[in-house]
Amino acid sequence: MPDSPDHFRLGLCQHACVDDPAANIATAIDQIQAAADAKCDLAVTQELFTTRYFPQREDEQFFELAEPIPGPTTQQLCDVASQCGLAIAASIFEQRALGVYHNTTVVIDQAGTIVGRYRKMHIPDDPGFYEKYYFTPGDHDANAPGWRTFDLVGARVGTLICWDQWYPEAARLTALRGAHILLYPTAIGWIPDDPAEVCEEQRDAWQTIQRSHAIANGVYVAAVNRVGVEGDITFYGSSFVAAPSGKVIAQAGESDAQLIVADCDLAAIDPQRRAWPFLRDRRVDAYRDLTRRYVDG
Amino acid sequence: MPDSPDHFRLGLCQHACVDDPAANIATAIDQIQAAADAKCDLAVTQELFTTRYFPQREDEQFFELAEPIPGPTTQQLCDVASQCGLAIAASIFEQRALGVYHNTTVVIDQAGTIVGRYRKMHIPDDPGFYEKYYFTPGDHDANAPGWRTFDLVGARVGTLICWDQWYPEAARLTALRGAHILLYPTAIGWIPDDPAEVCEEQRDAWQTIQRSHAIANGVYVAAVNRVGVEGDITFYGSSFVAAPSGKVIAQAGESDAQLIVADCDLAAIDPQRRAWPFLRDRRVDAYRDLTRRYVDG
Repeated sequence: MPDSPDHFRLGLCQHACVDDPAANIATAIDQIQAAADAKCDLAVTQELFTTRYFPQREDEQFFELAEPIPGPTTQQLCDVASQCGLAIAASIFEQRALGVYHNTTVVIDQAGTIVGRYRKMHIPDDPGFYEKYYFTPGDHDANAPGWRTFDLVGARVGTLICWDQWYPEAARLTALRGAHILLYPTAIGWIPDDPAEVCEEQRDAWQTIQRSHAIANGVYVAAVNRVGVEGDITFYGSSFVAAPSGKVIAQAGESDAQLIVADCDLAAIDPQRRAWPFLRDRRVDAYRDLTRRYVDG
Repeated sequence: MPDSPDHFRLGLCQHACVDDPAANIATAIDQIQAAADAKCDLAVTQELFTTRYFPQREDEQFFELAEPIPGPTTQQLCDVASQCGLAIAASIFEQRALGVYHNTTVVIDQAGTIVGRYRKMHIPDDPGFYEKYYFTPGDHDANAPGWRTFDLVGARVGTLICWDQWYPEAARLTALRGAHILLYPTAIGWIPDDPAEVCEEQRDAWQTIQRSHAIANGVYVAAVNRVGVEGDITFYGSSFVAAPSGKVIAQAGESDAQLIVADCDLAAIDPQRRAWPFLRDRRVDAYRDLTRRYVDG
């Protein structure tokens, strides 16, 4: 199966983070090398994998954690990619310009070359997840299309990030650009005092909506979340890959570091879309109000 | 709970259909009356509840099953609504004009007045579901907005139909018009020779994507499917209601006629959307390509 040109093997790097970025990078690189040993075509990090989830509070000092792309972390990742011969999609706190910071996925091909980046388009802000303070939303214009896909090792990979996962628009727009696989590096967890039942409902909703993107678009979907308790948040891991049918084909636990390996059968996408021809029947003549905030009245 | 003005009680009428439309209408009216006895505010029929699922094949004689709105079936339903004091959303094979037929939901208020209709926007066509032969797609322009909501007994109800359920665009556009609840009268089933595992995956995908509309939009979602074997198709019932969290709060079996009653707490919607503020963060500046078929390149 992995030797077929139609099979694309994903490795999702789920781990906990400590205070020292160098240690987190070393952890991720160990997992990336393990992914290469498992003959993965692409390794994907969790969101902001070099640091603890600093947006848990608003503190100006945390801007010091940002770095340019290319920069020291991407250089290490490019070296690993070329040494191991696998592509990497890595989540970086990017300083783009003075006072302009993004939550960015950098995409590195298997030769170790940076082929592009995606800057998170939907930015959350709720208690414990104060991302609007840190991250400028990704831009969207003719020069910088917000929605991105990248051709890697025979697959077209669409890059989205965490909060984007709640937006069917983001999944659709990326799928319409030919993505076979949507990637969602993520940092999501439980906050104190929520009862266990509510926690389970939240995790289920998180997986449900991403599985629905797989179904609606006939694509693979891969979500990579961190584990561990950081301050008030218990990150719940549960990284997974869903097939275009919505079926979960790989699933991590909720508390341990784990490399998840999943095979995506690119040849299965066209038959899936023939059987469920959702893209055929879109009412593009009637979707214009999707660009409105709300339709009053 | 049912006596609170914030609680809206739904009754979903799931049943099998026989050849005789009068018998099917009688079955549905029995369920609607039971819904009224259960103090429901709104009863919802399954898709094309007056007939067997005739689009299983293309046959010109089946156009004879269509009727105007208002027409004989809606008159019976209006009488039941006013007698019982509950609103009804009913799925009708509508003849709109000579040679113009629609798959339509008619909405009747609790006084027995037709308050409007929704004409199915997304029309399927695949083996056993040849709907493009029978149904003109709903129109969408300034005079006939495709996406509809109706104010009924204190709730704003959004009307969608079956194949629409696979389109996040349809759910979003209806939710943006203020819907508290999305209704999906449905006719979906299994075709012969699919293994049990595939059947289960299909039903799970069907429920998953509709639950995701509840989550993405912070609305209740109600799907009403028929049961019974008709020709080659085993309709699998499983009618359900999902809360804005995505949690299934009522669920029918897969083979029996059943009235499903579910309470929708309208006061829960705003807190849900504060906790999961997805509508706040939509990137309306970057959604224009949703009106494109595909983005080549």
